[in-house]
Amino acid sequence: MPTKTTRDTTTTDPITFTTSDERIVELLDTLHEIADLGALGALAGWDQETAMPPGAAEVRGGQLATLEGILHERVVSQRLGALIGELTVAMAPSIEATASGEAEEATAWTDADRGLVRHARRDYERATKLPKGLVQEIARTQALSFAAWRAARTNNDFAAFAPLLSRMVTLQREVADRYGFKESRYDALLDIYEPGLTASRVDTLFKRVREISVAVLQRIQRSGHTVDTACLSGDFPIDRQVALCEQVLRDMGYDFARGGIEQSPHPFTSSFGSPFDVRVTIRPDEKFLQAAVMAALHEGGHAVYEQGSDPILARTLLAGGASLGAHESQSRLWENAIGRSEPYWKTQFAAVREAFPQQYDKVTPETFARALNSVAPSLIRVEADEVTYNLHIIIRFELEKAIINGDVAIESLPRLWNEKYKEYLGVTPPNDSDGVLQDIHWSHGGFGYFPTYTLGNLYSAQIYAALRRDFPDFDERLGNGDRLFALEWLRTRMYRFGAIYEPEELIERVTGEKPNPDYFERYLNEKFARVYDLPA
Amino acid sequence: MPTKTTRDTTTTDPITFTTSDERIVELLDTLHEIADLGALGALAGWDQETAMPPGAAEVRGGQLATLEGILHERVVSQRLGALIGELTVAMAPSIEATASGEAEEATAWTDADRGLVRHARRDYERATKLPKGLVQEIARTQALSFAAWRAARTNNDFAAFAPLLSRMVTLQREVADRYGFKESRYDALLDIYEPGLTASRVDTLFKRVREISVAVLQRIQRSGHTVDTACLSGDFPIDRQVALCEQVLRDMGYDFARGGIEQSPHPFTSSFGSPFDVRVTIRPDEKFLQAAVMAALHEGGHAVYEQGSDPILARTLLAGGASLGAHESQSRLWENAIGRSEPYWKTQFAAVREAFPQQYDKVTPETFARALNSVAPSLIRVEADEVTYNLHIIIRFELEKAIINGDVAIESLPRLWNEKYKEYLGVTPPNDSDGVLQDIHWSHGGFGYFPTYTLGNLYSAQIYAALRRDFPDFDERLGNGDRLFALEWLRTRMYRFGAIYEPEELIERVTGEKPNPDYFERYLNEKFARVYDLPA
Repeated sequence: MPTKTTRDTTTTDPITFTTSDERIVELLDTLHEIADLGALGALAGWDQETAMPPGAAEVRGGQLATLEGILHERVVSQRLGALIGELTVAMAPSIEATASGEAEEATAWTDADRGLVRHARRDYERATKLPKGLVQEIARTQALSFAAWRAARTNNDFAAFAPLLSRMVTLQREVADRYGFKESRYDALLDIYEPGLTASRVDTLFKRVREISVAVLQRIQRSGHTVDTACLSGDFPIDRQVALCEQVLRDMGYDFARGGIEQSPHPFTSSFGSPFDVRVTIRPDEKFLQAAVMAALHEGGHAVYEQGSDPILARTLLAGGASLGAHESQSRLWENAIGRSEPYWKTQFAAVREAFPQQYDKVTPETFARALNSVAPSLIRVEADEVTYNLHIIIRFELEKAIINGDVAIESLPRLWNEKYKEYLGVTPPNDSDGVLQDIHWSHGGFGYFPTYTLGNLYSAQIYAALRRDFPDFDERLGNGDRLFALEWLRTRMYRFGAIYEPEELIERVTGEKPNPDYFERYLNEKFARVYDLPA
Repeated sequence: MPTKTTRDTTTTDPITFTTSDERIVELLDTLHEIADLGALGALAGWDQETAMPPGAAEVRGGQLATLEGILHERVVSQRLGALIGELTVAMAPSIEATASGEAEEATAWTDADRGLVRHARRDYERATKLPKGLVQEIARTQALSFAAWRAARTNNDFAAFAPLLSRMVTLQREVADRYGFKESRYDALLDIYEPGLTASRVDTLFKRVREISVAVLQRIQRSGHTVDTACLSGDFPIDRQVALCEQVLRDMGYDFARGGIEQSPHPFTSSFGSPFDVRVTIRPDEKFLQAAVMAALHEGGHAVYEQGSDPILARTLLAGGASLGAHESQSRLWENAIGRSEPYWKTQFAAVREAFPQQYDKVTPETFARALNSVAPSLIRVEADEVTYNLHIIIRFELEKAIINGDVAIESLPRLWNEKYKEYLGVTPPNDSDGVLQDIHWSHGGFGYFPTYTLGNLYSAQIYAALRRDFPDFDERLGNGDRLFALEWLRTRMYRFGAIYEPEELIERVTGEKPNPDYFERYLNEKFARVYDLPA
């Protein structure tokens, strides 16, 4: 049987699975079915947040619980476990053989083979630790909890959401206990979203990030310089914002033949079979253009990453991103490093002006780009500037770590939230809708997820530096309206590999260096010295 | 264990399952899971037609094939088969016992119990006749075929659709052969959509319907009278049409907390868990208001039927309509008998005028209502008037019967279609997009489906007559803007029972009489004598 291969015209070495090995074929068949069911679940989740009527929350919860149950049965099947075990053993000696130059005797496993088995094993080991009843209970609670969160946010009523949040916390604690951990229960949840991440590592990293952020913020504040953001506010009819966002997405190489855009209370990207169906949502604000445009660039970054997976990875766990941190590195690269730069808006601003001529006839691209980089401590994470953004994350990290480890009660969350916002950012939410209720994550049980946002910011700065190093004329290209050189570079070095490599290995492959937070410090300092004309 | 019951405030006798019987409980548990998976498949189908990007067609096909495979495994499971067998036997003697007055000894099975077992048995028997590979192949082909149909319709290119249609026909023939039939292969497919329906019965019925239709059409044409339809054409911005359709739906009692409205190339209703999530689509035409408004009433009729199922039937095969014919009786009742009547528009016209003041300031409700009843042989089935509508169906019936029975080749369909339109309706499609490609059904493999439309028209006239008999002041109530009296009557007598009763039994329960096409003849004659002021 020949090895199945695919070749992207922009790449040199094709990604392959060793389909001459029957076990790989069987594993792929099994994982395809699992991925198919996962995609249908993702579609139901997307629908929940974009179109589902409120009265369907309970019945949808039942449907997702049924699906989770079936998925669970498949993932923990004995046959799959045996197959993974056999392949793990088969691959182990070949590593040694390769190292000692005796590779000819053993199968020359590809990186894709190894990635496939690694992911399958991780999922299998995780799933076998959770009973089906718990998995179904989580699915059921997610649907109810999401509906309760949405209503609570609309009505500014945290108390109405608290009972379901509390139930979700209990379930996530049980998950953590069953997964197991060395130091803190919260570690078990962090590991779900970013393999190997621990609370103590986050503590160290976030201490540094807080210092960096506060230092830059203080430099800005001490300078007394300001950025005029007036041009971002006005009257922006929703339909024209949506059309503008479509243009922004198209311009960055997002493929609408394999995607689409909707509106939802919280912008997000979802895939129902990468790279063939990856959609984004935005949340336009009639009075503030930045929300939708920056969401389009941010979600667009996630989406072009997913759309860039090699088609051979489709319907497997490897299609998509290497981790949430790796994913966020791309949303932030496109949103901030590219989308908040002056060269980018040099050409792109024409579309903004065309959409809202009255508002922008007398505004220059430079003024617009500068306005997008205003730094000011604020309430809403998704609208925060690059300097203070990570402080929002640090607050969430501290709170959720405490919740999961049982150090604080659910009821005290709104108070603690507001206290921390006062302490870290100097602002106090006027209500819980713009405070503790602003983010969807906890309603889904996504504890351990937030830290990956900051990790993504760090990775993003490092990848951006590598991109600029490879293109000394980066600003000139961008200023001429070219985005595809960057997209192609990212696809070739990063996107097409999906989740074949562990995130840290991937960053090293892409940038030539292990993850290093210095790049973020340098990026922030250089950028905001320029934007705010700071004294050296 | 107490019997699980639910009570609708408008009804007297609650619908119950005998949950004191463990077999019923187990059957319900199993069927709930099957219904859940079916709902997720329906959602994926809905998404395909409303939002899915074209590049996802193949991967979606794979996902649906996987789901169909799992559904199939569950439906044909030995345990389910045994359970259905046991319950069938358990119920059989109790029928005799009831008849002979010895019911006290046996379980007093409820109508819902019997309906549940009957449906489960039918599905089980059907499914065991089809191998899993065939079921998956059909799901895969459906996704590809739908995409091909959509492209072919846009590009007026039947040849591009023909290979997939041909493959679908081959698959449907195999289904028919495996199901088995007495007279013609096509019978096996008819029976899927309307239990017990056969081609020879349709032949007889359609002969009568053709005579009725042609007679009324000739009376109208001979009279020389015409209806002015000018007020239906103009400029109607899509967003205002959508808002108007929402008002129309709300007014007829459609519940948006358990529904929603989207746009798609072909209007349809879909349920993802009746009665809790039932959504409709429309296809507005910027130049012709009738398309969207009548689609809203039509799909709204389907939707209020689904939303009217007793909640105790949720997540079972019994939630929803008794058959496609029964379903269509409700879409046509709301669209035609109510929605094309003068009393209805007496109040509802205010919303039309408010949406399009320039167009309608000088138009009366009577003129508008009359325009909606213009009779003229035309090309597009979904926009056809009540007199000629069934001729469109008869054409499709004759063609699909011939295709399935192998009497005509796929390639000759466009020619035969156009010839029949010329013969039956006196019109010739200018292109295949408005001809043989206009309907979605064949792309989904829905052969045997079309005749249920005409059956629905016949049922509709009979139910409408019963409704008017029970409300001598029907026109007055409708003219005062009241719709809910009709909705409540329909819910109490029909909707809440879902699919508990076979369609013919249901019609008899609702109207007090077996299905009788005379009502349709009387309805058409009386209505169009009035609209066209015909001589007696």
